[in-house]
Amino acid sequence: MTKLVATIKGVYGYVPADVLSNKDLEQMVDTNDEWIRSRTGISERRILKDPSLASSDLGLEAVKGLLEKTNTDLSEIDLLICCTATPDMLFPATANLISGKLGLKDTPSFDIGAACSGFIYGLSVAKQFVENGAYKKVVLVGAEKMSSIVDYTDRSHCIIFGDGAGAVLIEATEEETGIIDILLKSDGVGSKHLHQKAGGSLNPATLETVQNKEHFIHQEGAAVFKFAVTKMAEISAQIMERNNLTPENLDWFVPHQANKRIIDAAQRRMGLPDEKVMLNIQKFGNTTSATIPLCLWEWEDKLKKGDNLVLSAFGGGFTWAAAYLKWSY
Amino acid sequence: MTKLVATIKGVYGYVPADVLSNKDLEQMVDTNDEWIRSRTGISERRILKDPSLASSDLGLEAVKGLLEKTNTDLSEIDLLICCTATPDMLFPATANLISGKLGLKDTPSFDIGAACSGFIYGLSVAKQFVENGAYKKVVLVGAEKMSSIVDYTDRSHCIIFGDGAGAVLIEATEEETGIIDILLKSDGVGSKHLHQKAGGSLNPATLETVQNKEHFIHQEGAAVFKFAVTKMAEISAQIMERNNLTPENLDWFVPHQANKRIIDAAQRRMGLPDEKVMLNIQKFGNTTSATIPLCLWEWEDKLKKGDNLVLSAFGGGFTWAAAYLKWSY
Repeated sequence: MTKLVATIKGVYGYVPADVLSNKDLEQMVDTNDEWIRSRTGISERRILKDPSLASSDLGLEAVKGLLEKTNTDLSEIDLLICCTATPDMLFPATANLISGKLGLKDTPSFDIGAACSGFIYGLSVAKQFVENGAYKKVVLVGAEKMSSIVDYTDRSHCIIFGDGAGAVLIEATEEETGIIDILLKSDGVGSKHLHQKAGGSLNPATLETVQNKEHFIHQEGAAVFKFAVTKMAEISAQIMERNNLTPENLDWFVPHQANKRIIDAAQRRMGLPDEKVMLNIQKFGNTTSATIPLCLWEWEDKLKKGDNLVLSAFGGGFTWAAAYLKWSY
Repeated sequence: MTKLVATIKGVYGYVPADVLSNKDLEQMVDTNDEWIRSRTGISERRILKDPSLASSDLGLEAVKGLLEKTNTDLSEIDLLICCTATPDMLFPATANLISGKLGLKDTPSFDIGAACSGFIYGLSVAKQFVENGAYKKVVLVGAEKMSSIVDYTDRSHCIIFGDGAGAVLIEATEEETGIIDILLKSDGVGSKHLHQKAGGSLNPATLETVQNKEHFIHQEGAAVFKFAVTKMAEISAQIMERNNLTPENLDWFVPHQANKRIIDAAQRRMGLPDEKVMLNIQKFGNTTSATIPLCLWEWEDKLKKGDNLVLSAFGGGFTWAAAYLKWSY
């Protein structure tokens, strides 16, 4: 029997319509467009303003678009996985909510939590299910309403995050393409530098935790930046070496869009020219688990069958991860 | 090449020392021991009282015990998965926190969210990684500080939940044992009946959400009970039929411990005598993703190599799931 290899058969992205520009932020906190762009590479980000909508609604739009584009019927979906750091609720899983809104019945669905590396972690999980023959069609969606945990009075982090979602359809292929290799890493040492202090079982929500703004992202920029620069470059280089990829035969680098300077460091380590690096942070900011599928969605037209792609991410946990894909269509 | 089959090679459980008995609850809300026992089967549950400790600390104890008992060195762990509905924080993942406290470096770890069915969902994910040869030793831990989301003035649900954790070591076997079959299901229709209203991206924590007690479990008992009774019995019968299991050749039923009457209904549908059903709800209550490994831990001495086990769960999402295991030691 030919060994099955899982591959991405389609991708779709969704971002909300409302734009929050650097100029807008200048009115809200003591910052300026030039500073934000030079430090992060971000010019604007999208925000889901409607308070009645949450991450599942962003994910729903991405999945609906994906199914329509790939002519996939609901009855064909064997598993739906959602990666999110901003679930609608602590439970049930946001994947269950997306499934319910889609109209799926009985189809298994669950969430994966690995913060900004969630999409590559989810890709690895989906790959196992497909390659083992457990499921044929897996929908993997990264969906984040990051604006729900951003303190828009804190200039250090409100400039970074945006809302969005991206979904991929994963199936088996017997061609010489697919999700060839994945590396996953984590180190709990990072938790103190990047977390949401209250709202979980450690510090349940109280009047005090709300007053103390402990339900927002806590990010110690310098510590996270230092670790991210090192680890994302390291794992990106490692996945190249393991798979005999060179700056010449690697076609595309698809980095998590956290900060352009982190991406630049990885790109330098990999020896890649700018034209091989997918970059849309300027438009969308950091959408956590949605950044990578949003890049694939935007660049899909340029991708050719057989193209070599390296995906790479770093984020809360700390978690970091990289994947080598040979594009299938 | 022989097809690898994943199996459980060890199990360990941990519950906190403090007991919350029905008599204690009689002092807190308008209820009584006889009513609680007849409706739920629960006499007492364990509570993690120390406010500085959370789900990761329960999970840590279970994993430490597991590693010691199975003579597993930290360096041998390839992946750590935590299932929890009560993560320490929204991010990072509780699995990352357990890894950090254990002293793991670089080892991948992530959370799975599928509420009360989390452990069987996690078992399925771990099975895929092992059977594909991606990882050799996977630690799967269910850890819940349910008391952090229980409203101890609400007699309808404060009687049900307890705190605890259970961990299993999953490896490949080439013997005729292992995790033979798993069925996973979900239906988002259930979300309205069982959820935690606030604290996620849909209803971020505010003074109002705290005052309105929206950070506690919302459970519409009758609706959940009706669905649970039907679905848990159905999936338990289904996994028996698919695997030619009968009341005679099935050795053990390991049900999620949500309510004794739900377990009874499944047991009747399966045609099983009491002595084949693992039941510790009277001592621990519903510990969500920890109930099944806590049962396996307590019954481990009675299990024999080759025993046929059916695991079954139902919970928030709704999610439900069943597994057929042939015990390996």
